[in-house]
Amino acid sequence: MKPIQVGLLGVGTVGSGVFTVLERNQDEILRRAGRGIRIHTVADLDVERAKALVKDHAQIVNDARAVIANPEIDIVVELIGGYGIAKELVLEAIAAGKHVVTANKALIAVHGNEIFKAAHEHGVMVAFEAAVAGGIPIIKALREGLTANRIEWVAGIINGTTNFILSEMRDKGLDFATALKEAQRLGYSEADPSFDIEGVDAAHKATIMSAIAFGIPMQFDKAYVEGITQLDAIDIKYAEQLGYRIKLLGIAKKTTVGVELRVHPTLIPAKRLIANVEGAMNAVQVFGDAVGTTLYYGKGAGSEPTASAVISDLIDITRMMGASSENRVPYLAFQPDAVREISVLPIGEITTSYYLRLCVADQAGVLAEITKIFATHGISIDALLQKEANEGESQTDLVVLTHETKEKQMLAAIQDIEDLKTVLGKVVKIRLEELS
Amino acid sequence: MKPIQVGLLGVGTVGSGVFTVLERNQDEILRRAGRGIRIHTVADLDVERAKALVKDHAQIVNDARAVIANPEIDIVVELIGGYGIAKELVLEAIAAGKHVVTANKALIAVHGNEIFKAAHEHGVMVAFEAAVAGGIPIIKALREGLTANRIEWVAGIINGTTNFILSEMRDKGLDFATALKEAQRLGYSEADPSFDIEGVDAAHKATIMSAIAFGIPMQFDKAYVEGITQLDAIDIKYAEQLGYRIKLLGIAKKTTVGVELRVHPTLIPAKRLIANVEGAMNAVQVFGDAVGTTLYYGKGAGSEPTASAVISDLIDITRMMGASSENRVPYLAFQPDAVREISVLPIGEITTSYYLRLCVADQAGVLAEITKIFATHGISIDALLQKEANEGESQTDLVVLTHETKEKQMLAAIQDIEDLKTVLGKVVKIRLEELS
Repeated sequence: MKPIQVGLLGVGTVGSGVFTVLERNQDEILRRAGRGIRIHTVADLDVERAKALVKDHAQIVNDARAVIANPEIDIVVELIGGYGIAKELVLEAIAAGKHVVTANKALIAVHGNEIFKAAHEHGVMVAFEAAVAGGIPIIKALREGLTANRIEWVAGIINGTTNFILSEMRDKGLDFATALKEAQRLGYSEADPSFDIEGVDAAHKATIMSAIAFGIPMQFDKAYVEGITQLDAIDIKYAEQLGYRIKLLGIAKKTTVGVELRVHPTLIPAKRLIANVEGAMNAVQVFGDAVGTTLYYGKGAGSEPTASAVISDLIDITRMMGASSENRVPYLAFQPDAVREISVLPIGEITTSYYLRLCVADQAGVLAEITKIFATHGISIDALLQKEANEGESQTDLVVLTHETKEKQMLAAIQDIEDLKTVLGKVVKIRLEELS
Repeated sequence: MKPIQVGLLGVGTVGSGVFTVLERNQDEILRRAGRGIRIHTVADLDVERAKALVKDHAQIVNDARAVIANPEIDIVVELIGGYGIAKELVLEAIAAGKHVVTANKALIAVHGNEIFKAAHEHGVMVAFEAAVAGGIPIIKALREGLTANRIEWVAGIINGTTNFILSEMRDKGLDFATALKEAQRLGYSEADPSFDIEGVDAAHKATIMSAIAFGIPMQFDKAYVEGITQLDAIDIKYAEQLGYRIKLLGIAKKTTVGVELRVHPTLIPAKRLIANVEGAMNAVQVFGDAVGTTLYYGKGAGSEPTASAVISDLIDITRMMGASSENRVPYLAFQPDAVREISVLPIGEITTSYYLRLCVADQAGVLAEITKIFATHGISIDALLQKEANEGESQTDLVVLTHETKEKQMLAAIQDIEDLKTVLGKVVKIRLEELS
């Protein structure tokens, strides 16, 4: 049978990985897919870079629209990134009847609803395994592997840069700025790291997982996003003493009143497997009502790991070429007419546990005042860590772990605590999840 | 659309989980599959037990063949276990044109080649996600998620009973017999635990993974199988001191000269994520040339976790009903005509590192004699741990970690070492894998 013809838009890091792996493993891929998969044309503004990579093994153009217009091409792979031109090209490819594979999490998280609607109307497949957690087949696990379950929550370390930074801060006692410089020196972070360290990248991925886990539309604009830039090394140390690690988690949780969708630094018990995911690695923990906890771990970025996900999508599409659309796995795991409009809750309405660090005057009665405020707000305390004041100092750190409470109740309690004369400065608040 | 009609053979632990989860989550399942899935008939010799479970929600028969013969039934789920009657029934169901889902690892590992051949001839699907690692979608990850890769090796903790026993031995310093009793008391082990503790169950699962990872036939009869019954608590302790944990691993590795397929207690670095899989949990680490290391973790047994896997297979089959066989994922991940006859290597031909414990006379020159033997056999030493002899004792333990060597060279070296007058008794040998 004639090989499937692929048009590749963009041959940067991931595109070159796709090209290289498809060539290197063409024998295995043919043995699996039953049909060859060939890069027909590569489109890149940097034609010289493209030539250096593909030589005469594929056509090279500098105009992506020439790929979309080519009737010989079956599948368009979008590896441009961002949601400007990438969005236009993906929608044009769909309108031209091409199947689409993309690694673009921002595009899917922000414009996914529109893209899948267009794809459904034009009867084409759109696959995005590479958009979440790179080489880990987490989209497949959620869309197909756990379909028997009501998925209750998903929590993932889905940004390698921030996990590397947090690992360095913990291992070496570095502050955030120093660990970030180390990440940049080692190539784990972009020159402009803001999308990573501010949590935006993780929020894109958490948004996508929330949609396919719960059968809801993409609601990136309603995600709560808090990065790691304000994280203090002392809190990592105190967390450790209490048996916890701090990770930047992307969390999607279904509750009786709505969906929680949030990215923030989170204390998790050190004994959980996911707490031991170090460096730039990714891991996603999924809790289903039948299966319980499952976890998926691997490289979340990089040329060949991401290419692994892109190519598995190409093979899935190749296999389903010619089957009817009812035979396909639905874009968002649930049939298009079964997606439900469940809203993402505002952050004040979420329920979680908390780690609080207070700087308190070293005098009698302080603890009584504070615990009284918690009791008034209906918040129960799980653990306390009071440091001895240093010689000659009149203040000390008090660390409190609470049981689950609603965020707005916690904020009200913190307000009252900060009004106490014996509490100095702002209260540091970090959310805590047991993940059990 | 009319719901898919399922016939359930056997309603023990897993069967009741399948029935319960299908009922409880029918809304989610319909929203995902686009079509209902209904238990039409349940067959069980214990009709009273079946009645207590299904009430009037399905027909109950005591003859499995009545299910196979029923033209209304689309999919037969075999949950009887073993390879006697289960094999006959599966082959009869296939011959009758039914699709089959099974959780039966023994059946697939031992008779899979025959079963898939028959299924191919009759154009039916046979799915077996539940046969390996219970609720973890590892078959899907290997067959579909990692298709871009040349898979180099798979190593898994795929027997919960033995992992529970090893965790107890390490945590509490118990010996094997005591830990086994504890596992039996808590229901983690059968009354007759031999399939678990002798490694046979893990070997079934490793055999299945080797076939779909490498595109080779099932070769259970060539698997090397060594359980944990001979494991001494002292070796768990020494391993710990050297930075390792001992796990019962099922390993499938592709080398330039053949395939290694082996189950045995294995030292792995304590810092690897898989080393931290405790209790009855399962985890499989897969190394692909493009993606690098990935890991899949969850419950490997139990009623609902296993049901989760069975039902995801039912949903996959439901979705593909009516598609042509070219659209299907091949039984063994590779197209039937692309499966290659690569042989499993005899254990003497495998290559690995080793942990050795020798009881040696506490006198000068012993170490020189031993290291000379290693050198003669071309074996290089990675680490040594020599214990001080206890007060008044004339012998002591010497622990050696070696670099990679061929097993038969190691056996020859051990022979020479045991011939030394200064070495007392047999040398304890445990294989070691870095899993990096």
